[in-house]
Amino acid sequence: MHDNIRTIRNTVLARIKPSPEERNKLAELARRIAGYIQDEGVSCELVGSAARKTWISGEHDLDLFLMFPTTLSREELKVDGLRIAKSVANRADSYEIRYAEHPYVHARFDGYRVDLVPCYRIESAKELKSAVDRTPFHNKYVLSKIGGLEDDVLLLKRFMKCADVYGSELRVHGFSGYLCELLIIHYGSFLEALAFACDWRDGLSIEPGVSTSYRDSNAGIAPGGVWEPLCMIDPTDPNRNVAAALSLDQFYTFVDAARGFLAEPSIEWFFAEPVPPVDKSEITGAIAARGTDLLAVVFEIPDMVEDIVYPQLYKMEQSVLSMLAEREFAVLGSAATVLPAGMTAENVVLLIELVSGELPALKKHIGPPVYMQNHAERFKAKFVAKDTFSGVYIEDGRYVVDIRRKYRLAKDLLESELSSCALGKQLRECVRAGCVVLERDEITDALDCEFLNRFLRK
Amino acid sequence: MHDNIRTIRNTVLARIKPSPEERNKLAELARRIAGYIQDEGVSCELVGSAARKTWISGEHDLDLFLMFPTTLSREELKVDGLRIAKSVANRADSYEIRYAEHPYVHARFDGYRVDLVPCYRIESAKELKSAVDRTPFHNKYVLSKIGGLEDDVLLLKRFMKCADVYGSELRVHGFSGYLCELLIIHYGSFLEALAFACDWRDGLSIEPGVSTSYRDSNAGIAPGGVWEPLCMIDPTDPNRNVAAALSLDQFYTFVDAARGFLAEPSIEWFFAEPVPPVDKSEITGAIAARGTDLLAVVFEIPDMVEDIVYPQLYKMEQSVLSMLAEREFAVLGSAATVLPAGMTAENVVLLIELVSGELPALKKHIGPPVYMQNHAERFKAKFVAKDTFSGVYIEDGRYVVDIRRKYRLAKDLLESELSSCALGKQLRECVRAGCVVLERDEITDALDCEFLNRFLRK
Repeated sequence: MHDNIRTIRNTVLARIKPSPEERNKLAELARRIAGYIQDEGVSCELVGSAARKTWISGEHDLDLFLMFPTTLSREELKVDGLRIAKSVANRADSYEIRYAEHPYVHARFDGYRVDLVPCYRIESAKELKSAVDRTPFHNKYVLSKIGGLEDDVLLLKRFMKCADVYGSELRVHGFSGYLCELLIIHYGSFLEALAFACDWRDGLSIEPGVSTSYRDSNAGIAPGGVWEPLCMIDPTDPNRNVAAALSLDQFYTFVDAARGFLAEPSIEWFFAEPVPPVDKSEITGAIAARGTDLLAVVFEIPDMVEDIVYPQLYKMEQSVLSMLAEREFAVLGSAATVLPAGMTAENVVLLIELVSGELPALKKHIGPPVYMQNHAERFKAKFVAKDTFSGVYIEDGRYVVDIRRKYRLAKDLLESELSSCALGKQLRECVRAGCVVLERDEITDALDCEFLNRFLRK
Repeated sequence: MHDNIRTIRNTVLARIKPSPEERNKLAELARRIAGYIQDEGVSCELVGSAARKTWISGEHDLDLFLMFPTTLSREELKVDGLRIAKSVANRADSYEIRYAEHPYVHARFDGYRVDLVPCYRIESAKELKSAVDRTPFHNKYVLSKIGGLEDDVLLLKRFMKCADVYGSELRVHGFSGYLCELLIIHYGSFLEALAFACDWRDGLSIEPGVSTSYRDSNAGIAPGGVWEPLCMIDPTDPNRNVAAALSLDQFYTFVDAARGFLAEPSIEWFFAEPVPPVDKSEITGAIAARGTDLLAVVFEIPDMVEDIVYPQLYKMEQSVLSMLAEREFAVLGSAATVLPAGMTAENVVLLIELVSGELPALKKHIGPPVYMQNHAERFKAKFVAKDTFSGVYIEDGRYVVDIRRKYRLAKDLLESELSSCALGKQLRECVRAGCVVLERDEITDALDCEFLNRFLRK
């Protein structure tokens, strides 16, 4: 191994690898809570990075799964499971109920975050009744393979965090912890994983420890769905893609970072220099220099689970961009985010950059090809008495007429037609309750400088 | 026949059919000039509409072809032919030498325009040495078929003139007189030709008097060339498309007019109401209401043959539009014309309408796909030290960087880069000698209101 890389590896591990004290403390806490659960007559399993010793120092969470027999109905599991989890959590400093496919308890014990998740104890992953039932199988598989590779998992996770591609949350669309572990198991080390990633192309399929191949379509993975750049076959369930949440751009951001690190290895690939803070006048100047038009759609949402808000927000973003493009506004870029509560009254922001927020009154309206006589007659009849700029004329074999544009300003379009965009259920209600379109100085006045700076610098 | 249509037919013919006096006068003049030619020891043929009695009253020209034996070399034909034509033209009121493939003489006798064109007398169209040699064969073919259909030819020509699709000159890209005659011969009458034209689709092939069919490509007509909407096989030369000069939009403009006439027959399809004149303030108002940006490239050309100027001008137009589109200026429409001499110092105009003549400083520059590692490295290296708005980032699987646009104003782009466009030889010299880009009020101040009005109303 390159001397430089060895030094980097050791330096990074010294900062991110949990100390024996940290490990002991966490193990002791896990044993204590497991005892509380067993006191309730329920067996439990410690899963996740804490179970596999692949957590980054200081970022440890405990995931404890409460195992119930399959003789319980789903409703019984939901009710009994939550009751017992709450009973355990009564000994915690604090707790709240959270909702995934089923409700679970998120508690704090001695300052540690602890998830108490009820699930079915099943014999094989083929019998699973809900997504969480799979987790104990993942745990067993990783534990059986990861011995001796824990440091490499830590390095890969830290590297991905620094490249902003870590996390399978729907906000990030990146690499999950389990996916990191499978990559290390498959390639054998942090450096091997990075070396192979340099040559990755979207369409990659990996069966961990078995083979890699390329495919041309999603057939068999997500038929009809979005293109999945990486298919990591779940060793506990061959029909599942562990990397289903990974987006194309996050896939390639990792590829690009892998190449960058191997070309010029340095500690900065693990611990980024903090971005120097910018003030409002710098942002205002940067926006003016671009000469583009920025618009921000802002509204308020109550405190909601990220994995519910972000898919709706991204869906809204796509729908709004489509509407703008359809109305001939040229979009240069966009960003959607939920700002930390308290920063502004409106905490959800959809920021859009346009070549221009204003279009001419005249809009060229393209009609049917001249040879389609029936369509042609209907088209011409439609515009005969209309207030148009031109008569119906022929261009490139089609009828065309210069009509008056309904929305000359993107701001007007957004204010009037946002509700006709595809919005998720919760977001639709929030938008209806009050939504403002900001432009020019209103944007720099209302929004977080760091968010704007990230958007402008990319 | 529809009573109304019969009335229209008679009314139109009364206005456009040459009177017996007009016919006699023209025949007499043709005989007299033929005599002059024979005095020079050369035989001649009267061709064109005067020979076929298919000229529109008042629009008669005489086309007299001086027939030379094929024993003459091309150079001899050029020299001797022109010498004899000039000698004949010495008895005219005035004459000038014009240039097509070979020089010929354009003269005025008693106020009539007379072309004296030297050509080879050949046995069959297969032996032809230049395009003009074909004309006597066209003449013979039409004379053999047109008897009794002359009125229908007159109606079709007048109808096409009124629809602005008559003329195979490279300025018009329309239907030639010979093409009109072949359409009447093929379909049998004016009304039949129009009735069939309602259902025309581009790709139509007609073998006059034999068959019609459709084709999907230009193969065998103009391989690799522009798509020819109509192929009218020349009965005197099956390898030639009589309609080669016809553009797609002129083809469909005729189709559209045919449908319009048959749906609502009226005399206005033959004699259009004159467009009411507009003044400068109306044009200025109309341009302002559109909210678009107009630019006019103007320069001066010396008095040149239209069929040389227009192909170069249209080529320039396409090249300029491509350049604008490549630089991200959205083009709504354009028009190119040569204004009558004396209207302005600059008599050539290329008028361009843009969504906006100004673009933001920021330009999104799309690079190679991330997986193409070699290209990627070169791309990133190229922008490392550049004055860009962003770092190199990843979007839709490709590298992208926000750079500074070279030309924010379309006017600047045209002024600086017009010379790099594809310009014909003559036009290039004229543009180099002096070319101005006008905008806003400069356009209405400098250009003909009728030309601008036609452009705006389409």
